[in-house]
Amino acid sequence: MDFKQLQSLHMTAETKIVHLVMDGLGGLPREPGGKTELETAHTPHLDALAGEAQLGLAVPIGPGITPGSGPAHLALFGYDPVKYKVGRGVLSALGIGFDLQPGDVAARGNFCTVDDQGLITDRRAGRIPTKVGQQLVTLLRDIQFPEVEVFVFSEKEYRFVLVIRPTAGQTLFANVQDTDPQKTGVPSLPALALDEESEPTAALINAWIAAAREILKGHEPANSVNLRGIAQDPGLPQFQDVFGLKAGAIATYPMYRGVAKLIGMDVLPVQGEEVEAEVEALRAHWSDYDYFFFHVKKTDSAGEDGDFDRKVGVIEHVDETVIPAIMDLNPDVLIVTGDHSTPAVLKSHSWHPVPTMLWSQTCLPDGATSCGERACARGSLGVFPATDELPLALGYALRLNKYGA
Amino acid sequence: MDFKQLQSLHMTAETKIVHLVMDGLGGLPREPGGKTELETAHTPHLDALAGEAQLGLAVPIGPGITPGSGPAHLALFGYDPVKYKVGRGVLSALGIGFDLQPGDVAARGNFCTVDDQGLITDRRAGRIPTKVGQQLVTLLRDIQFPEVEVFVFSEKEYRFVLVIRPTAGQTLFANVQDTDPQKTGVPSLPALALDEESEPTAALINAWIAAAREILKGHEPANSVNLRGIAQDPGLPQFQDVFGLKAGAIATYPMYRGVAKLIGMDVLPVQGEEVEAEVEALRAHWSDYDYFFFHVKKTDSAGEDGDFDRKVGVIEHVDETVIPAIMDLNPDVLIVTGDHSTPAVLKSHSWHPVPTMLWSQTCLPDGATSCGERACARGSLGVFPATDELPLALGYALRLNKYGA
Repeated sequence: MDFKQLQSLHMTAETKIVHLVMDGLGGLPREPGGKTELETAHTPHLDALAGEAQLGLAVPIGPGITPGSGPAHLALFGYDPVKYKVGRGVLSALGIGFDLQPGDVAARGNFCTVDDQGLITDRRAGRIPTKVGQQLVTLLRDIQFPEVEVFVFSEKEYRFVLVIRPTAGQTLFANVQDTDPQKTGVPSLPALALDEESEPTAALINAWIAAAREILKGHEPANSVNLRGIAQDPGLPQFQDVFGLKAGAIATYPMYRGVAKLIGMDVLPVQGEEVEAEVEALRAHWSDYDYFFFHVKKTDSAGEDGDFDRKVGVIEHVDETVIPAIMDLNPDVLIVTGDHSTPAVLKSHSWHPVPTMLWSQTCLPDGATSCGERACARGSLGVFPATDELPLALGYALRLNKYGA
Repeated sequence: MDFKQLQSLHMTAETKIVHLVMDGLGGLPREPGGKTELETAHTPHLDALAGEAQLGLAVPIGPGITPGSGPAHLALFGYDPVKYKVGRGVLSALGIGFDLQPGDVAARGNFCTVDDQGLITDRRAGRIPTKVGQQLVTLLRDIQFPEVEVFVFSEKEYRFVLVIRPTAGQTLFANVQDTDPQKTGVPSLPALALDEESEPTAALINAWIAAAREILKGHEPANSVNLRGIAQDPGLPQFQDVFGLKAGAIATYPMYRGVAKLIGMDVLPVQGEEVEAEVEALRAHWSDYDYFFFHVKKTDSAGEDGDFDRKVGVIEHVDETVIPAIMDLNPDVLIVTGDHSTPAVLKSHSWHPVPTMLWSQTCLPDGATSCGERACARGSLGVFPATDELPLALGYALRLNKYGA
């Protein structure tokens, strides 16, 4: 059912939905025959909820596809991430917490190494340390042009973000090709406008690159730059219009706050980095919203670090701290899930479907006794697209009218 | 696989398929931790069949979406109800058993109350009793125009059906907007043609409404009318063309007989309202058809009334009476399902997926010992779109050729 059809079914209700996303929740056993991180964790509160809930495995993008954080979250928010694309430049800008405005043009930048003839010898400039990247970015901030404001921020190591903001009332378009040829031994490509209206943007970007190369001369290995994913805020359908839910986002990391902002969620202030602070934000704003996106980052960080035990510990902490606090608020629907899997043994995001639990007074419980991947694989939600979570939540929250007579 | 591709695979066979639809079959427990209506019912015949069958949960429209009866049945018949829309006027006309002809324009009507200035004060005319609605409809039948025949029938309470039939060989089009503004304190909208060819229809409808208002003067609270869902027989692909099955529909309620007729099924005569009479119809026509749609209404009625025990009783009666009778006829495929869930505790249709059992000599049994929702949630059909049931039935009935070499 597309957004327009779903909109036509909206029904007003006083019900509240909490979408608890433990980033990178899904995992794998440390040894053959063993348990995953979630299965290993001692989670009495989640297990008790599982007994009253429906379980399943959510597929973020598609079978076998490992999601990035941006598309994975769009899927959880009900947006098909293959249809609703957000450019890499925009995701990078959101990821560093930049307050991207509609009309801004953002690009992901990479420092690189070129030889005397301008041929690329290292696309990542020897993976310079973040500190060096930051120093170079400071130099690049001197490049400015009339009628636009240019922002440059270091992301990590050899990666940076470039944002060009029109300041003279003009409109910039961002249909401009990457300059990164994706191989060495060749020169960088010029920033090529793919339509006529993007030509002024391409000209600005080429001028910026030329100036950057001048500044970076002698700063080997980072003596040149490439730009990728030149993009603008894609103007996504707004969450409240699509789902009829006033939405508050509780997240401490810029990327997730940024994606929530792109679709018009209110990003709530959180006083600290810990889940306890996020719980406080949930309590403080409970009466103000219909839907809460509650993001837990550290499951993913532990998985990315390959730290199985730390990931187990984060899950146990959420079970002890977050779950009882949410249930004390009497939500009508609680979905506990992840945006993707990050098995500690893989030290990276993975394609494995994500253990998911849907709890509601109106659900027909599977009667499970635990909430791990194997319990979810036997659950009544089956293996389902993550984009189903929002429509399911609306149904269970009694917020949709009947379709047809 | 779309209809055209499916058609290209048709294979002639002597096999017979029975699609037993217990309306609103799916349910919920009466108390936390309890059993659903189907799980509570003593169903030795269904349980025995379950041991030789494959189970699953069917999703009628989409996740979280509560289906109306029309779209839910189209899905069971293999038609994507979001793609193949049937207007509300047509469903209302079918629901009262009107013999709708291609070319007829049908609308759902509501009596309403307007004040001195013509502003709507009650969109449902104080929910006048059905008897009053019937008396007013009799008055409205006096409104007639040249070159068309106008039919008006009371549906229930403040609801009625209007049908305009061209009688002079002309063609009417029905792309005409609702007159119901969906709120009070404003006047009704005119019936606005949304394309040029629908203008004659809009003119007729506006003239009919004006005449109706004259007649209804002084009949407060029902002193005006609104029309919604102005529509025609959508000319759906015909069931026999799509699936290669000669189909007989056995149903006692007009709506289901009407939907079956829309897709070209033969609607079989049934001598009475009880399932025993439907079984007689099945026996009498067994040799005439490849596919039988067998509809049981009273599961849904009991659910809508919130009568858990009565719904259990209807299921038990079907188990005792209908199932053995069907199996005595030696079908090749029997699907037992519902069009949607109607949990007695919710007293209404719901979005919960529908317990479904597919029995065939060629199926690989799950080995279940019962056929309730939780058994179906663990079944090998998984959670699947209801539109899959017909293609599955064709496969198990050995009625489809191999796809590709």
